[in-house]
Amino acid sequence: MKIAILGTGMVGSTIGSKLVQLGHEVKMGSRTADNPKAADWVQANGEKASQGTFATAAAHGEIIFNCTQGMVSLEALKMAGEENMKGKILIDVANALDFSKGMPPTLSVCNTTSLAEQIQLAFPGVKVVKSLNTVNCNLMVNPKLVPGDHDIFLSGDDSGAKAQVAELLKKGFGWKSVIDLGDISTARGTEMLMPIWLRLMGVFQGPNFNFKIVH
Amino acid sequence: MKIAILGTGMVGSTIGSKLVQLGHEVKMGSRTADNPKAADWVQANGEKASQGTFATAAAHGEIIFNCTQGMVSLEALKMAGEENMKGKILIDVANALDFSKGMPPTLSVCNTTSLAEQIQLAFPGVKVVKSLNTVNCNLMVNPKLVPGDHDIFLSGDDSGAKAQVAELLKKGFGWKSVIDLGDISTARGTEMLMPIWLRLMGVFQGPNFNFKIVH
Repeated sequence: MKIAILGTGMVGSTIGSKLVQLGHEVKMGSRTADNPKAADWVQANGEKASQGTFATAAAHGEIIFNCTQGMVSLEALKMAGEENMKGKILIDVANALDFSKGMPPTLSVCNTTSLAEQIQLAFPGVKVVKSLNTVNCNLMVNPKLVPGDHDIFLSGDDSGAKAQVAELLKKGFGWKSVIDLGDISTARGTEMLMPIWLRLMGVFQGPNFNFKIVH
Repeated sequence: MKIAILGTGMVGSTIGSKLVQLGHEVKMGSRTADNPKAADWVQANGEKASQGTFATAAAHGEIIFNCTQGMVSLEALKMAGEENMKGKILIDVANALDFSKGMPPTLSVCNTTSLAEQIQLAFPGVKVVKSLNTVNCNLMVNPKLVPGDHDIFLSGDDSGAKAQVAELLKKGFGWKSVIDLGDISTARGTEMLMPIWLRLMGVFQGPNFNFKIVH
């Protein structure tokens, strides 16, 4: 499958490399077509990896991952262009963490809305599915990094899109338990896990932990 | 031990009854000394149970539980009076859920502050410990309602107070795993679990579930 990764940071690189390993044709998009971090990633990942602008990557992808920093995701997605994303699944893994006011970071949107809802509102023709934003990027594509059973969440308005994402998470990335929380507004819940996640990273001295809902 | 329960709702009644069963002398406080819900609770719980105003309850308690609704907690605690709480442990189990804007409720404070921090700021002489606010009240005092291992969190500035609360949670209420998140500002993390908690209640068709941090 052709997949777009928007963003050249650790999250985009990690998900992109996993998708290449799974046999997908992955184009990494950024503000410029010749982004040096994307170039390094392409060189490291072989012929199924390519790079381009946000717009050419979005046009390439049948599925699009938003791996940009949450504070600039809306701007990046505007550069990607609704016409290049229309009717497609956009998997939003970003968190709108605002580091400008010191540590720990706060969220630039929360409580009465969420980044995922803002994206869905700005691009109504796109099937936005929020997922993976509650774990470190290495864990996103390799849940076995944390032993035992633990959960990953899904939020989105389109049931078919969520089913397709759940299959990628399970068969592609190895997640055993995927919890569908409901419509896109449920992304408030997972985005608002960030404050406790950041503190738990301190408690456990690193990012290799995850939530399990025991019931 | 003498313990105050501020608030006459389900949370206060449930915690109060458990504390009476454990042998403590529990006074339930409300706006008026003759609150009928508190009177019913006293009648149901025998001679170790009593009722009074927020102020007389706070004066009675060596430990004070804030079980008022989060939106009115600061007002209730002002009525309790700092002079009646000074130097004591205040266990804040409240969530500042605002139902006035429709369902699901939002939080009246979050992200850059928390209810627990606001209480600590308003009453600097009180040892505020945030805990139990991430589970249903029946689970608070009976963690075995959800089988298997799962966690309860602590936030607070006073290490000695947190140690004392952890002992009550473990030996009194039966919690096996108590995670100390750090200072009182870490209560932002647990208070901001409410949005996903409310959605998970829908997914699991009831409140008998809890978070476990797998690491």
